[in-house]
Amino acid sequence: MNNSKSQVAGPSKIRWLINKTSEDWIDLAISNPMEILLDHAHCERKAAGVALQLMFRYVSEPGLSEVLSPLAREELEHFERVLSILNARGQKLQKLASPPYGLTLAKNICKDEPLRMLDSFLVAGLIEARSHERMKLLSIHSPDVELRDLYADLLKSEARHFGIYWKLADERFERNLLTSRLEELAKVESDALLEMHHQPRMHS
Amino acid sequence: MNNSKSQVAGPSKIRWLINKTSEDWIDLAISNPMEILLDHAHCERKAAGVALQLMFRYVSEPGLSEVLSPLAREELEHFERVLSILNARGQKLQKLASPPYGLTLAKNICKDEPLRMLDSFLVAGLIEARSHERMKLLSIHSPDVELRDLYADLLKSEARHFGIYWKLADERFERNLLTSRLEELAKVESDALLEMHHQPRMHS
Repeated sequence: MNNSKSQVAGPSKIRWLINKTSEDWIDLAISNPMEILLDHAHCERKAAGVALQLMFRYVSEPGLSEVLSPLAREELEHFERVLSILNARGQKLQKLASPPYGLTLAKNICKDEPLRMLDSFLVAGLIEARSHERMKLLSIHSPDVELRDLYADLLKSEARHFGIYWKLADERFERNLLTSRLEELAKVESDALLEMHHQPRMHS
Repeated sequence: MNNSKSQVAGPSKIRWLINKTSEDWIDLAISNPMEILLDHAHCERKAAGVALQLMFRYVSEPGLSEVLSPLAREELEHFERVLSILNARGQKLQKLASPPYGLTLAKNICKDEPLRMLDSFLVAGLIEARSHERMKLLSIHSPDVELRDLYADLLKSEARHFGIYWKLADERFERNLLTSRLEELAKVESDALLEMHHQPRMHS
């Protein structure tokens, strides 16, 4: 185990995201701000669910709940912030069909421990990394000032979150294993976005 | 729907808990403070899980996430507070066998909507009510000052939480139905504690 802060710097050296988000996605997202916002509320809610699920699955794992419980709380805070904007704009929190992205990543998580734990951290981190990249784009390109400010605020946390998942993995697994598995899963992540899903979603 | 504050006062008029906790439980709990504390950490974690599970199941229900998301965050804050005391005392967050209490209550939740929603709120509220009663006892009888103060702080929230679940039910269901179903489930709750489970747990 290595608790030095230098570990958190790891992700910037690694190709977490193999492909950049396309111009097409930006156009689709900017043209459908409320659907993206609604989808983003669901993303924050689900991210809290993932953190809690990992806390429950690995309840006896030392040092895990101490990190994931505050992370889950922060995701819920963001969810509430997005929800309040939805409510203020008269948009109900209704279900949205999910793009295949999450399911594709989940299917690629190894079924057996301890690799299941490693993959779960890496997949959660990759999703945070992609959210960070796309929220950055929304914070630049959105013509709506309130939404631009919202995404600019939230993306700072997303950057921290993928650092947290990286560190959780790096404290528990050999760096070589981590890096090679990350490259495989990053390929799955980017490939899942290559075929454009024509609904406006954070991860379409 | 009735949002008036008077609704929150409802629980005090209703026999939420049919039987008081026995002297035997108090003796067992006071004699095993670390096991009770560890179990309490799990209770806070599970309470956050229940709130999140209800948010996920009824994702489109107006006014639900707005209440349950902050509640889940508060449960996680309490979990972290208990966890930090466990850590400071050298007690790892390890699994504990659960008493039959939770499972017995879950089995009595109606399988069909909309009664499943009503029962889910009432069962969550009953568990909070019992936690409140027992934390009050621990805050009085515990010889350990740090734990006495901890329970005294936390029990204030438990009182609010059963008010929240009551209000969620009261806003959505007829008062007569609510009251009669609450009496039935409160009977199940109290009966589940009549046969003393001989491990020290918050709900043994």
